[in-house]
Amino acid sequence: MSELRRDPIVGRWVIVETDHPNKPEEFEYEPYVQKGGTCPFCYGNEFMTPAEIEAFREPDTGKNTSGWQVRVVANKFPALQIEGELDRRGVGIYDISNAVGAHEILIETPYHQKDLCDLTKAEVIRNIQMWCRRALDLTKDKRLKYIMLFRNHGKAAGASLEHPHTQIVALPMVPKNVAEELRGAQGYHDYRERCIFCDMIRQEQEDRERIIEENKTFVGFCPFVSRFPFEVWIAPKKHNAYFCHMNEEEIPDLATILMDVIGKTKKVFPNVSYNFILHSAPINGDTNNDYYHWHIEFIPKLMRTAGFEWGSGFYLDPTSPELAAKYLKSAR
Amino acid sequence: MSELRRDPIVGRWVIVETDHPNKPEEFEYEPYVQKGGTCPFCYGNEFMTPAEIEAFREPDTGKNTSGWQVRVVANKFPALQIEGELDRRGVGIYDISNAVGAHEILIETPYHQKDLCDLTKAEVIRNIQMWCRRALDLTKDKRLKYIMLFRNHGKAAGASLEHPHTQIVALPMVPKNVAEELRGAQGYHDYRERCIFCDMIRQEQEDRERIIEENKTFVGFCPFVSRFPFEVWIAPKKHNAYFCHMNEEEIPDLATILMDVIGKTKKVFPNVSYNFILHSAPINGDTNNDYYHWHIEFIPKLMRTAGFEWGSGFYLDPTSPELAAKYLKSAR
Repeated sequence: MSELRRDPIVGRWVIVETDHPNKPEEFEYEPYVQKGGTCPFCYGNEFMTPAEIEAFREPDTGKNTSGWQVRVVANKFPALQIEGELDRRGVGIYDISNAVGAHEILIETPYHQKDLCDLTKAEVIRNIQMWCRRALDLTKDKRLKYIMLFRNHGKAAGASLEHPHTQIVALPMVPKNVAEELRGAQGYHDYRERCIFCDMIRQEQEDRERIIEENKTFVGFCPFVSRFPFEVWIAPKKHNAYFCHMNEEEIPDLATILMDVIGKTKKVFPNVSYNFILHSAPINGDTNNDYYHWHIEFIPKLMRTAGFEWGSGFYLDPTSPELAAKYLKSAR
Repeated sequence: MSELRRDPIVGRWVIVETDHPNKPEEFEYEPYVQKGGTCPFCYGNEFMTPAEIEAFREPDTGKNTSGWQVRVVANKFPALQIEGELDRRGVGIYDISNAVGAHEILIETPYHQKDLCDLTKAEVIRNIQMWCRRALDLTKDKRLKYIMLFRNHGKAAGASLEHPHTQIVALPMVPKNVAEELRGAQGYHDYRERCIFCDMIRQEQEDRERIIEENKTFVGFCPFVSRFPFEVWIAPKKHNAYFCHMNEEEIPDLATILMDVIGKTKKVFPNVSYNFILHSAPINGDTNNDYYHWHIEFIPKLMRTAGFEWGSGFYLDPTSPELAAKYLKSAR
């Protein structure tokens, strides 16, 4: 028999298979195989991308040339454009607006083949530093209300380019799922005067059953109400609404845990595709920083989502997070 | 430049590519190719499924034998089980419950290869009649609060068995996305004393630009705020909260429009996989029937959903619904 579990933040119910869970070998996922070919993100092809916005590079190398370690460019096919004023208007019962915002690509490494977990710790630290720099810079634009940072790794996870990259989308409004999380977290805070994420982390630290990895600053765990099998959340132990407020001592701890979580997942599921999404508080608004807690949601792409999930927001997790944590914890 | 559009029911923003939209030939979808092999849903293999719950069959043929036209069985690997009482309890900050509910499979036809649009109209009518019969029967169980009817066609859409079938999941709670829709529709009704779906249908009928198909009872259109390219909604023109309250004159009109929408989509995208989900009002509760309006959401599987959408509930539709409707309307 399975179990129904309710997410305390957004009120989502998930069916968790506790009795006859899927073991790792039972997932038929599409392994990620690189195809190669000309790559606009490789050294020497800098001219193929829109102009460089920012980079960490070797001394004495010029913009839009090789010699960079991390390079940020605008998306060649941006979903949103930075020019223009937000012009919101009605069309009968619908609302429309022009698509003001930013869509940037953070090229993580010159190495076409290297996933984040294959880089050196110093290289991953530079990437996280760049996440923070871009977020702080975009926050200066008062039209923008939310910064979404995410990574699609592999075709099955929606990546259209092979070369490792992270995307940053800055939006003129708070997206729906984030607004729901905020509402849930605020409801809890109004009632208990505590951050729900802090309470969740505390409960996970007491239970220990779902924790995969922990260091001074961060904890990585399979959430009690996982929507997807082998889903992992990485969260700072100390309350913090904005990821870009991490300090220079905390960033290396995030690099370690992020590399570990990806590395362990790929030990259990070789060449798996995955997404991770950074959830952080909205910017340039009147959000109370006391109740939101930034975190990363990491999702290996093991299943295809079916009509069930789209229709209902009701998920079926074939592997309990307790079992998933057991496999991930012991992955070598 | 693209356009941001806001769904008036749940408040979701979607980026719609209006300037450089994707044309049908630009989608690289995974075509659905049947693999064959032993099928538990084919004639002669009735013993391979759990016991028959209900069927339309030839006279003088017995339960769990061949001779059926539409056959309903329990899912062999059910997500929920009908036995037991709902036992909801807390685990620290989380809530759990045992998974009481029903998970039924409606085998649509004895023909392994035939999609709904390949059947005769009389056969599709029998299927819709069975949807209604099962829904009315499950509604008698007062523990159940929502009936979800959906169809996964093709591997890319999450179907694990090839033989055409529809799934019915009856849940002991109203799922999250439905609850949101209800809240949105109620808010509109409180304010305007009208059904938001009725207003939306009226606006579509005036605009006509997004309408693909219309008959006496139903209208099929690409919604103004489509999350997915070539998404189609089919809705009754007359206000009705529950699909199972359709009368015998309305069912044939649904059969016609459903077959047309699937058929036209497959003309534009040969062998495409798809999902459709029937949205109807919750059962056995205190829902006010005045503000919810049942409808079908039909989604061809043309893209992989990436981190972007999971993270935010913010969608990017590469083909405007106006253009999608133009292609679908003229498909022969």
